[in-house]
Amino acid sequence: MQDCFCDADLNLYPNHVLTPMPRSREAAQASLENLYRIFTIPEEPDSTLGSIDQAITGNVGDFLQKHVVALERKLSEIEGDFASPRIPEDPTFVSDYTEFLKEKLVAQSVHTASPRFIGHMTSAVPYFMLPLSRILVALNQNLVKVETSKAFTPMERQVLAMIHRLVYNRDDDFYGQWIQDSRHALGAFCSGGTVANITALWAARNRLCGPSGEFRGIAREGLLKALQHLDCAGLAILVSRRAHYSLGKAVDLLGLGRDNLVTVETDENNRVDLQQLREHYRRLNGEGIRILALVGIAGTTETGNVDPLEALADQAAEIGCHFHVDAAWGGPTLFSTTYRHLLRGIERADSVTIDAHKQLYVPMGAGMVVFKDPATLASIEHHAAYIIRRGSKDLGSHTLEGSRPGMAMLVHAGLSIIGRKGYELLMDLGIEKARCFAARINAHPDFELISVPELNILTYRYNPAWLQAILAQANDELARRINSPLDRITETIQKRQRAAGISFVSRTRLAPKRYRGDTITVFRVVLANPLTTETILAAVLEEQCALARQDDIASLLAELKAMVSP
Amino acid sequence: MQDCFCDADLNLYPNHVLTPMPRSREAAQASLENLYRIFTIPEEPDSTLGSIDQAITGNVGDFLQKHVVALERKLSEIEGDFASPRIPEDPTFVSDYTEFLKEKLVAQSVHTASPRFIGHMTSAVPYFMLPLSRILVALNQNLVKVETSKAFTPMERQVLAMIHRLVYNRDDDFYGQWIQDSRHALGAFCSGGTVANITALWAARNRLCGPSGEFRGIAREGLLKALQHLDCAGLAILVSRRAHYSLGKAVDLLGLGRDNLVTVETDENNRVDLQQLREHYRRLNGEGIRILALVGIAGTTETGNVDPLEALADQAAEIGCHFHVDAAWGGPTLFSTTYRHLLRGIERADSVTIDAHKQLYVPMGAGMVVFKDPATLASIEHHAAYIIRRGSKDLGSHTLEGSRPGMAMLVHAGLSIIGRKGYELLMDLGIEKARCFAARINAHPDFELISVPELNILTYRYNPAWLQAILAQANDELARRINSPLDRITETIQKRQRAAGISFVSRTRLAPKRYRGDTITVFRVVLANPLTTETILAAVLEEQCALARQDDIASLLAELKAMVSP
Repeated sequence: MQDCFCDADLNLYPNHVLTPMPRSREAAQASLENLYRIFTIPEEPDSTLGSIDQAITGNVGDFLQKHVVALERKLSEIEGDFASPRIPEDPTFVSDYTEFLKEKLVAQSVHTASPRFIGHMTSAVPYFMLPLSRILVALNQNLVKVETSKAFTPMERQVLAMIHRLVYNRDDDFYGQWIQDSRHALGAFCSGGTVANITALWAARNRLCGPSGEFRGIAREGLLKALQHLDCAGLAILVSRRAHYSLGKAVDLLGLGRDNLVTVETDENNRVDLQQLREHYRRLNGEGIRILALVGIAGTTETGNVDPLEALADQAAEIGCHFHVDAAWGGPTLFSTTYRHLLRGIERADSVTIDAHKQLYVPMGAGMVVFKDPATLASIEHHAAYIIRRGSKDLGSHTLEGSRPGMAMLVHAGLSIIGRKGYELLMDLGIEKARCFAARINAHPDFELISVPELNILTYRYNPAWLQAILAQANDELARRINSPLDRITETIQKRQRAAGISFVSRTRLAPKRYRGDTITVFRVVLANPLTTETILAAVLEEQCALARQDDIASLLAELKAMVSP
Repeated sequence: MQDCFCDADLNLYPNHVLTPMPRSREAAQASLENLYRIFTIPEEPDSTLGSIDQAITGNVGDFLQKHVVALERKLSEIEGDFASPRIPEDPTFVSDYTEFLKEKLVAQSVHTASPRFIGHMTSAVPYFMLPLSRILVALNQNLVKVETSKAFTPMERQVLAMIHRLVYNRDDDFYGQWIQDSRHALGAFCSGGTVANITALWAARNRLCGPSGEFRGIAREGLLKALQHLDCAGLAILVSRRAHYSLGKAVDLLGLGRDNLVTVETDENNRVDLQQLREHYRRLNGEGIRILALVGIAGTTETGNVDPLEALADQAAEIGCHFHVDAAWGGPTLFSTTYRHLLRGIERADSVTIDAHKQLYVPMGAGMVVFKDPATLASIEHHAAYIIRRGSKDLGSHTLEGSRPGMAMLVHAGLSIIGRKGYELLMDLGIEKARCFAARINAHPDFELISVPELNILTYRYNPAWLQAILAQANDELARRINSPLDRITETIQKRQRAAGISFVSRTRLAPKRYRGDTITVFRVVLANPLTTETILAAVLEEQCALARQDDIASLLAELKAMVSP
């Protein structure tokens, strides 16, 4: 290596002063040795990192149970451990750093794999995902191009074809023709549903505003000229008000503006109201605004409901616009013979988003969007001189992201090892568990079910039977006076339950029809972890009842009673 | 669990037929057991996956050496192993799948960690990154919100502050004030440099077109109204022609159009030509096009050159536009006391992109963009009812992506364990190695150095001394007639060397001044792997000479000789 310190006489940069290395050859050599070590010498099995590694390998559940501290520490305290903006000047021993990591980061992370953590969409992952992830990191492939990913390229294309077939179920000839065709793409693999939705709407926008006659297309000439070419005042996207916030980011990013993400009211089951959708369409038409796309939701983030996709497909066909379905959450329901009918019509979508790190049980960082027409992604195709050359098989020519890891391998593993039937079981379990939990909530005197589970997500709130009875009769004014303290109660219970660290449900704000659009705070439960049992769900409710008996909440309820009693 | 198969009477969906589960209770129970197994029971150490896992844990270099097949198999053959679009109906044993993986995927992947793989920016990662990655996957945090990431949130903010300080070096008061301030962000963590560049230009666009008077800002009203409000015909971005292709994606995505990514010629060292930049500015001004941003490059992808950032900062100040620096590759040069001056002026940039999966030696999937002004990202701020609520600490309110893994932990680990001095050594090594290799190429009779390394990237081609002498005298016509067969030779050698699998250099097309802008094909070498030795570099050249002696290339050279001899 030493010869590498030779003074190559290459100072062709008069403006650059080439000072010699500020250290002796010996010192340099010494630090070099250490440097090579961290690139080559593995940790001893009995080192701190080695032993944590072994512990996780042996039994991850046990490791997390032992090391992730349940009791919530104030975030402001935790911030104290990550307060310095200074990059350490000198190297640190891996073992010392690992100790820090164990106490300050791992211990204070969230036990997302716990069957009692039913508040969000991040849940347990099958055991085999861990060793496979290590292989992935060890290989450190970059899927932007074949030269840095080789077999990973056809593997990712296969995964996209499998998901495409799950949605569109085209025949073997179709896939035989397109699966490995470099000039076309059945979809794009990305870091998550947000990038997937953005990619879908980007492609839709560029397709609607593609080259024609003198106009060389929006990709080259931009939105202003595209609108002039289409002779319209703007491009709008229609979606239910339950839409994921990523769509707001998409219209902002794409230059359409959030005003042009037109959110439509929903029915009592949180599904888009088609009547109102048509009215919005007519209004926009009158304003000279062109509809770029209708977006249907298959599994709303907050309530897990599915829009009437068949009807939306008809509507999109009538309007003549792109039809995108955000099935980031609900897509895998297609694995279920029993419940796939809930997504009927999805096969008519021009594009569909499905997240692998949600209900395909892959670790965080894996999303996909598939397109009915393999030519759609050509509208965002791009090339460079050194990679993703025209005609090359490089995946980078059709993705929003550039360099990407081979996460598709974990999807490939899940689909192969769990299989269609395994995923069907997971989907059926979640949906039926949600129905049982809803039944339990309905049967319980102190809780009110707010959204009935269509998939495996439901919302409810603490609301004693006697108060529910009064609310049922109450006028708007009284309803509001009852709901607002109930909101405080729900929020307090949710925060204290989270802080107690035994179990976790999330909360959101909804405007159920029964309260004439009055927005209320509710508990939100996502039942995706197969290890969550009925017993756990019963315990979650009991814990919430106990919290409701605490003085401050009890007195709030007493005040309510006083207020409503004649 | 059984109670979960209860027939919850919740069919509030008349349009949905709730059929019973298509299998007996017993069968269901049986498959359930298997399902729980894959979520809970680890692989036996002596299982296929377990043993691979142990092998990687023991010695990853050895594992890759053994299992990644060097000899290149035709991609079309490999595609045969990934040809089925069918998701397997039944589950597969993990061991069977792992066998498939080992033979068909791992064996046919690219040995990016090999010290002989010097063609691209993906290189070896320090050993400790592997076990730490497993911890990351086991914790499966989602950094979009505190509720699914807890300590990972302040940790990521600290990493962004460390990188911010590396670039801007503000005082402790500054970081004390902003590092954990939820309403502001020193930067955004993302999946890679492309998203980082897009985020920077998105924020710049939204800031330039922010709310003022009647106008509610581009985020709400869109680009058309923003241009009307600014009273200009378009927004342009100026950058050298060596810019990364992600900038093309950015202007497309943002609705500006690729025509408005104005690429400026470079000088003989591949640095933006300021004279021409000013001319473009004047022209655009005349056309009523407003300059959104100047982009400087700190480490061009193809040649590793650095634009005159100080001068660009002056220019941007004069124009009054956003100044972004794409330091995805070269940013970490700031660690080097000896070479950080090459990036002088970067501290005046409004935003800077730095990739962690490049020269911070973190596995694929980690990029960052930092902003001089902590208020800049407010222009793309967004919220939702169930997460990233206003005032919350949720990181998701300022990122393009939604759900994200905790990759920042690996950057935190690298910065802590390797330390500033360790990274300095890595940077110095690469740059000095590149200079030695350039000297070697200059000293070799059969090679022509095309771009002199400023950082650790250089380009060259096979071009015998006698031919170089003739080219030096040749007129345009003759030069072209010599260069075109030389291009074929370079491309052939590069492909055969890759196919032989001993070593790998990449290739690209450049238009060096000495050939008056004639575009030629060149070898491209990136010297980031600290394990790459002088001996290896010598061997790479020898192998290329040997390939050049093969019949077809030899005869091409003979023809050339005949052509040019009087």
